[in-house]
Amino acid sequence: MPIVTAMIELIKGGGVTSPKGFTAGATHAGIKTAGEGTADLGLLVSDVPATVAGVFTSNKVVSPSVVVTRQRVAGGQARAVVANSGCANCCVGGQGLRDAEEMAALAAGHIGVVAEEVLVCSTGMIGVELPMALVRQNLGNIQLGDESGTDFAGAILTTDTRQKEIAVSLEVSGTKIRIGGTAKGAGMIHPNMATMLAFVATDARVEKLFLDRALHEAVDVSFNMIDIDGDQSTNDTALVFANGKAGGDAITVGSAGADVFQEGLTYVCTALAKELVKDAEGAQRLIEVEVVGAQTVDDARCAAREIASSLLVKAMVHGRDPNWGRLMMALGKSGIEFDESRVDIFINDIHIAHEGIAIPYLKDAVISAMSVPEVRFRVSVDAGAAVATAWGCDLTEEYVTLNSAYST
Amino acid sequence: MPIVTAMIELIKGGGVTSPKGFTAGATHAGIKTAGEGTADLGLLVSDVPATVAGVFTSNKVVSPSVVVTRQRVAGGQARAVVANSGCANCCVGGQGLRDAEEMAALAAGHIGVVAEEVLVCSTGMIGVELPMALVRQNLGNIQLGDESGTDFAGAILTTDTRQKEIAVSLEVSGTKIRIGGTAKGAGMIHPNMATMLAFVATDARVEKLFLDRALHEAVDVSFNMIDIDGDQSTNDTALVFANGKAGGDAITVGSAGADVFQEGLTYVCTALAKELVKDAEGAQRLIEVEVVGAQTVDDARCAAREIASSLLVKAMVHGRDPNWGRLMMALGKSGIEFDESRVDIFINDIHIAHEGIAIPYLKDAVISAMSVPEVRFRVSVDAGAAVATAWGCDLTEEYVTLNSAYST
Repeated sequence: MPIVTAMIELIKGGGVTSPKGFTAGATHAGIKTAGEGTADLGLLVSDVPATVAGVFTSNKVVSPSVVVTRQRVAGGQARAVVANSGCANCCVGGQGLRDAEEMAALAAGHIGVVAEEVLVCSTGMIGVELPMALVRQNLGNIQLGDESGTDFAGAILTTDTRQKEIAVSLEVSGTKIRIGGTAKGAGMIHPNMATMLAFVATDARVEKLFLDRALHEAVDVSFNMIDIDGDQSTNDTALVFANGKAGGDAITVGSAGADVFQEGLTYVCTALAKELVKDAEGAQRLIEVEVVGAQTVDDARCAAREIASSLLVKAMVHGRDPNWGRLMMALGKSGIEFDESRVDIFINDIHIAHEGIAIPYLKDAVISAMSVPEVRFRVSVDAGAAVATAWGCDLTEEYVTLNSAYST
Repeated sequence: MPIVTAMIELIKGGGVTSPKGFTAGATHAGIKTAGEGTADLGLLVSDVPATVAGVFTSNKVVSPSVVVTRQRVAGGQARAVVANSGCANCCVGGQGLRDAEEMAALAAGHIGVVAEEVLVCSTGMIGVELPMALVRQNLGNIQLGDESGTDFAGAILTTDTRQKEIAVSLEVSGTKIRIGGTAKGAGMIHPNMATMLAFVATDARVEKLFLDRALHEAVDVSFNMIDIDGDQSTNDTALVFANGKAGGDAITVGSAGADVFQEGLTYVCTALAKELVKDAEGAQRLIEVEVVGAQTVDDARCAAREIASSLLVKAMVHGRDPNWGRLMMALGKSGIEFDESRVDIFINDIHIAHEGIAIPYLKDAVISAMSVPEVRFRVSVDAGAAVATAWGCDLTEEYVTLNSAYST
């Protein structure tokens, strides 16, 4: 969590429709096999055209839904996004592009806007076509409401066990604005599902160039710093819509409110990212890895991610085993600049290694300190002043069981 | 396995002492806690000074045992290697270097050579000092014999369930030579143990420069193409000793026998590498990933390794689930050059995806085809002519259980 200097207020029970001028809704189309009547098709709509920015998967294999959305986001404005769970619309040849465009067009018709103003996201099984007949039959049933953010948050879930939602309000250059968001996680109980989707809405008035930069900066320290299993989806997408309904001057690069808005956006993204990790499949503990004293921010980020994603580190957290040698191993594997004899390691504030050597400690005390839902590692490499934090989850037998089940 | 064009003959029951002029032995020193009387200290000795080459971990944190050995290997000749299991002699400050040097000196005294001719390897727990008193008391008990390769192969094991040994004979430029080897695996039942050690002996007469190149080339397609859990030890070491006892002309870069010797060495390293994967902790199935038609060998290697090391791919093999979408995901994540619409995928020779799209198949037939000890994926990317093979193992609940147990 970044140090909060802006006055960020949590909106209790808030979500993606907490900002002014956003409505949402969802319906059961039958795309997702889990749970009769479960919502699997959702819409998030802005009353007025919103400035939009997006960050997408860097996997070379991408869903046509990502292709369509990326292109439309580049245009700078959008009115809505339609999202489905149960099918990733990926690795299905040319049909995928036609289906993504049709799904957006159906949503546009339903809410009365032009098709190009609607973005589209899919998550679920790779290699099977979207059942468009079900989409056609059911999309019209979606009823929009300004308190239906939770319905939308539910429609995008696959193997997640719960909705992830957050909303905050803050003052930007004298104008009170709201930022709300929802995300779905990298849980993969049903095989082939690995997609991270995040949707953020704000009623701030934000210029496109700054919104692009702000989203990238927020994603870099939040969604890009979490690791469930090292794999990366073909459909990962984070979108932010800024519809300006709160009024005030447009927030631009270098404008008075830019830093405050950035803080709010980063806060929302970080909170959602941590929720994704906590709800990862089979996960029982959150791992927070803070690397301090690295030569560069890139070094700090690289080392933090390497440690948070090491299977041996994940397994030791599961077993509450203070095997700090595994942290050294992962740190060394990261390839960053450091001197082993200057490394200090702390587990939940207990100083366990000093200058690269074990400190005699009461093992039971450290095991006890690790018996909490959030295990924090601080690794000081004393090579500079750069800092970064990454999050991961423990590796459990349940993860394996869930991911090795037949896809049938 | 490379295509064998040389006449490589397997020596039945052979191992590291099958080549002429090598003896080995082992003893129980008490360093390794597992099993009373289990050997944990071993010696491999050449009757005469041998040309030596080594490949070492690229982890930035390395055991002082690696530091000592790397330096001595650079000198080009050695008489022996002493190896212990149970303690990695790593992350223990300056004491580690003194202990590595003393262990080598003790071994040198025992066999009557100078200390600088003895290499040293350690594997086991990181962050604890070598119990040198036990080494001093017991090293002298090691009895050398030319049929004791199996004893040495046992002394280096940590969480492995069995010795890995192989020996072959082949004719190089009219001279019959032998290459024998042993390795210990990346099994990590006891936490903190992750080291891969490999020792290869040959009675061929080999010039240092060529031996260096040949070992690197062999390691690149064998030990460097296996993945257990993506982590990398601080102690990984592969050594080859060539003592020339078979006679004949020295094999040099470009000499008549160079290619044949390379084939033999690669054969031995590949066989040992596959044994390591098969005996990985909790592993029930070997995964072989062959990427064909890549633009460059680097691309092919990168993609094959990415697929073989994907947790989702490993889990699907465990569950015998033909989720080819996960192969596409891992291929895309590798970042190599390819066009999704030209990818074909085969699972144990069953054609499952063509031009990036699923082929309708009998799911039960594929599940049945995956119910074997070796699951082979062939991924054709149709972007060039380069080929590479990587090996991995399935991810099982047992792996997690084993690696999350307390280190006590």
